Amino acid sequence: MKIKLLITYDGTDFCGWQVQDGKRTVQGEIENAIESITGERVRVTGSGRTDSGVHAEGQVAHFVTEKEGFPPEKFAPAINARLPEDVKILKSERVDDEFDACRTAKRKTYRYSLYLSEVEKPLSNRYATQIYKKPCLESMREGAKVLIGEHDFKVFNASGSGAKTTVRTIYDINIEEHGDRIDVWVTGNGFLYNMVRTLVGTLLEVGYGDKTEKDLIKMLESGDRARCGRTLSARGLCLINVEY
Amino acid sequence: MKIKLLITYDGTDFCGWQVQDGKRTVQGEIENAIESITGERVRVTGSGRTDSGVHAEGQVAHFVTEKEGFPPEKFAPAINARLPEDVKILKSERVDDEFDACRTAKRKTYRYSLYLSEVEKPLSNRYATQIYKKPCLESMREGAKVLIGEHDFKVFNASGSGAKTTVRTIYDINIEEHGDRIDVWVTGNGFLYNMVRTLVGTLLEVGYGDKTEKDLIKMLESGDRARCGRTLSARGLCLINVEY
Repeated sequence: MKIKLLITYDGTDFCGWQVQDGKRTVQGEIENAIESITGERVRVTGSGRTDSGVHAEGQVAHFVTEKEGFPPEKFAPAINARLPEDVKILKSERVDDEFDACRTAKRKTYRYSLYLSEVEKPLSNRYATQIYKKPCLESMREGAKVLIGEHDFKVFNASGSGAKTTVRTIYDINIEEHGDRIDVWVTGNGFLYNMVRTLVGTLLEVGYGDKTEKDLIKMLESGDRARCGRTLSARGLCLINVEY
Repeated sequence: MKIKLLITYDGTDFCGWQVQDGKRTVQGEIENAIESITGERVRVTGSGRTDSGVHAEGQVAHFVTEKEGFPPEKFAPAINARLPEDVKILKSERVDDEFDACRTAKRKTYRYSLYLSEVEKPLSNRYATQIYKKPCLESMREGAKVLIGEHDFKVFNASGSGAKTTVRTIYDINIEEHGDRIDVWVTGNGFLYNMVRTLVGTLLEVGYGDKTEKDLIKMLESGDRARCGRTLSARGLCLINVEY
């Protein structure tokens, strides 16, 4: 039977989602936990990779088990008992064979968090990236409008990514202010490697007046990575949810 | 000259504020950093100790230096350059000799954070304590009213504390709900060892209907520690500010 997992993790001490030899990864920890329960060496397929240091409130994955008698909802507590403190399964349930955490994902939402401070703040630093001066949020919102819709985002595609197509649809970008924190919420049908971090870095440059909406249009048209903003640190990024 | 420091730290990896042999403490890290700048072995006096694991957004401390020529506001960046990532100085300034971070403190505010979840959440767990069922916040607010004012809080005084008097004044207790998080803000003229953590643990029992306001009145009158709620984990506690 096929089991769907809803997963949350603090990415700080993980080398990302995907199993790599000798590295501590989220996928690796979950596969080891399942093996110690069922004795099976299964592949846990995520909705996509998250990079080293990126967090998740609601990553989704699936795996196939031969343990037909095991109650699907009991996988979550059983796996959690074998997982370290920084990754936990929020829910486990049986799904149809057609379900595929990666291929049938329709929408993903990420949140990128920034905090405004002259001094590095230990209590903000784990889940947000420091900025030193306040960007103009209205300019950022205007810039975001250029990016919403179906576009060829090859400009945001980090080298080394094996994506077949670089066309993606962004459904929504919301920029919220909470005290000294700025949250940028991005929802799309999928994202290229490093895309959200570079997208927010580019919008920040718009917020600082270093780029205009016209620059963003030219950037998309040219596909020239040199026209992007910088790729922000992984610590501010969190995968919020995946919809099917 | 006397220098006042405004300090923030993530208490997770510290054995509290106070210097102890062979232990990693906030006071110890700051004293070492100052020594490497001025060559002086100074004592950094905090507004009070915080326990192992307790965080601070705005701890206050002072120290005396013979380096009269050193610009007071430059101590913050100079110390920060020598501090680890989990403790930083937000501000340094010269103060009158009468200022004493501990003895002249008038009001302190702490925040205790809880999060409601059936499953432990790695992204909430560092700065809040998990609760499994929702307490009645209105009952907690009614219970809090009993504690506001000047009382002998010896019932909240953990054994081993060397406090001369256990009479303290609580000026305000505010209970706020933000999604699945509950923040309890407590302002007083000072707090006994473990007092805030036990106070919030007791209010939680009121919120669950296991204690009434009358029980709290009897608890204060009797001074019997067995009538308190449990002392909650340090991870949910944060010293927000100290007023002089």
